[in-house]
Amino acid sequence: SVLLLPPEHQHLRYNPLKDSWVLVSAHRMKRPWAGQVEKPPEELIPRYDPRNPLCPGNTRANGEVNPSYDSTFVFENDFPALQPDAPDPGSDQHPLFQSKAARGVCKVMCFHPWSDVTLPLMKKEEIIKVIDKWAEIVEELGATYPWVQIFENKGAMMGCSNPHPHCQVWASSFLPNEPAVSDRCQRAYYQKNGEPLLVQYAKQEAEKKVHYVLIKIKFPIAFLLFLYLYCCSSGLAAIMKQLLTKYDNLFEVSFPYSMGWHGAPTGPHLKEDNSHWQLHAHYYPPLLRSATVKKFMVGYEMLAQEQRDLTPEQVTHFALYTDQCGTRFWLT
Amino acid sequence: SVLLLPPEHQHLRYNPLKDSWVLVSAHRMKRPWAGQVEKPPEELIPRYDPRNPLCPGNTRANGEVNPSYDSTFVFENDFPALQPDAPDPGSDQHPLFQSKAARGVCKVMCFHPWSDVTLPLMKKEEIIKVIDKWAEIVEELGATYPWVQIFENKGAMMGCSNPHPHCQVWASSFLPNEPAVSDRCQRAYYQKNGEPLLVQYAKQEAEKKVHYVLIKIKFPIAFLLFLYLYCCSSGLAAIMKQLLTKYDNLFEVSFPYSMGWHGAPTGPHLKEDNSHWQLHAHYYPPLLRSATVKKFMVGYEMLAQEQRDLTPEQVTHFALYTDQCGTRFWLT
Ligand SMILES: O=P(O)(O)O[C@H]1O[C@H](CO)[C@@H](O)[C@H](O)[C@H]1O
Ligand SMILES: O=P(O)(O)O[C@H]1O[C@H](CO)[C@@H](O)[C@H](O)[C@H]1O
Repeated sequence: SVLLLPPEHQHLRYNPLKDSWVLVSAHRMKRPWAGQVEKPPEELIPRYDPRNPLCPGNTRANGEVNPSYDSTFVFENDFPALQPDAPDPGSDQHPLFQSKAARGVCKVMCFHPWSDVTLPLMKKEEIIKVIDKWAEIVEELGATYPWVQIFENKGAMMGCSNPHPHCQVWASSFLPNEPAVSDRCQRAYYQKNGEPLLVQYAKQEAEKKVHYVLIKIKFPIAFLLFLYLYCCSSGLAAIMKQLLTKYDNLFEVSFPYSMGWHGAPTGPHLKEDNSHWQLHAHYYPPLLRSATVKKFMVGYEMLAQEQRDLTPEQVTHFALYTDQCGTRFWLT
Repeated sequence: SVLLLPPEHQHLRYNPLKDSWVLVSAHRMKRPWAGQVEKPPEELIPRYDPRNPLCPGNTRANGEVNPSYDSTFVFENDFPALQPDAPDPGSDQHPLFQSKAARGVCKVMCFHPWSDVTLPLMKKEEIIKVIDKWAEIVEELGATYPWVQIFENKGAMMGCSNPHPHCQVWASSFLPNEPAVSDRCQRAYYQKNGEPLLVQYAKQEAEKKVHYVLIKIKFPIAFLLFLYLYCCSSGLAAIMKQLLTKYDNLFEVSFPYSMGWHGAPTGPHLKEDNSHWQLHAHYYPPLLRSATVKKFMVGYEMLAQEQRDLTPEQVTHFALYTDQCGTRFWLT
């Protein structure tokens, strides 16, 4: 029988955080690409733009004036997808046409007063301030809301409509689908194995010494965990700066991505035992072949199953780490 | 208590085919868009291009020469994501790093000999030939493979790399995630209610007379089902032509989308009772605001939950139908 060579032979890989499978067909990278080519990101972003509503001192859509902030700056999203006071649809519903109330808060958080920087270009001390603010916001909104989603859409390719470095925070009165699935998977694993899924995953990766990007830069995962335990925001800031600099260097472009944090559910769930949860971040980079050719998650992916054109191991060769779940790191 | 006004107040809607929830925040459409603008589709596509590997009489990447076909033309994908003979990864695996064999066949199906037509521009008789060929391929590959995914990625925006009108067929040795979830939901509903989920859904929509695009063009859903029962490919061809013409007219552009068919699982499942399954198609149109501004499924959507900026009812006003599951129609 022939030996499976992952870059040559398609196969399925399990995503334990979603309890689902990914089709890995790495030989697909050999096909020529005559499809859509993206515009590379704008290179000349002014440090200050008088018309940009995220810059210090400028007036936003609702007439409010931003302070002349010199670090992070958090404000309520002027076009929030979630508002605190939406009415309830009521309960007289056909089971196939159910709807439920959704309440929440959407905030925007600027990382820096300058529009022409990104996280990897910021100083470690500045990134620490971002991380500390993340922790503060989760604590504040998580006191009542069951889920606080911090996420960054970076780059026009990822639907970001403002080049100023920023992320968003959407807190909701409900536990959204993705964390609900991840909660279920982590809980089941913990109940069976007595240790969190992601901690065992990390240990395995450290042992195999193949997957983890930070191994390459001398942070085995065990050390990463340790690091955060003792150094807190500072260790994470260093790791984020390294990861994102690698992204930028890969195709020599300010690398687009969507990223976000997944921690244990909050609000009413704070009273529950959440030992199965391991706080972690997901990074989803869209670029596949170059600065201008992305991976399209379309027909087969939408209708049948996620499919990837590179193995995680090959991506490690590109000096960044990604697995079935996207790029990921976690801390405790 | 305030009444919920769906275009004004965010709320959650249930997607019964996925047993998950969608955040509907229609007021988000009011926010200004300064983000990415797509190139409108190329307008001048030559009817015949000597370098296009999908045109009649041309030579493909593997050296094979296409016949001078005058209707549909099916051939093996020259860069298949699934091949019939991939090796097995073996079973000695850590539960967190499982992989499985994936085998299959990928085919490409040209709809028409001309590159400058699309389904809505084709004659009804020509569309019938496409539908009949779909049925033939599913029967052929479904004899052994448990899942045969027919899908069309239309337009560069949906990752299509060749303007010639075509779809793809990927048959696999496994039941992919999406149909596996849909199978589970339809089965549970059927066991509880004794009628297929989608048939009850269709009846409800016909009763409410609000959702279904074809109601507007005098095909209530019941009639649609009836139509297909008696007219087979011909009725479906008429409906497809109407739906896709509506898409094209919406923003006066050759409308991009990904679409595909979901029928009961095949191969070994042919022996099972599949009364819970209702054959149906999903259409996923990416455009939101205009021919050049799409809806980005990014940070919040990838990390937390699907979110839409328009209610299904509003989309009906745009003369096309889409619900939490994308645009959809089904037949029996
Ligand atoms: O097969 P194609 O048209 O080259 O490729 C397109 O469809 C595939 C199936 O949805 C996707 O995996 C690719 O990312 C997309 O570019
Ligand atoms: O809030 P923004 O940056 O205007 O919007 C962006 O992120 C949102 C959350 O992921 C998405 O729903 C939008 O489609 C995207 O364009």
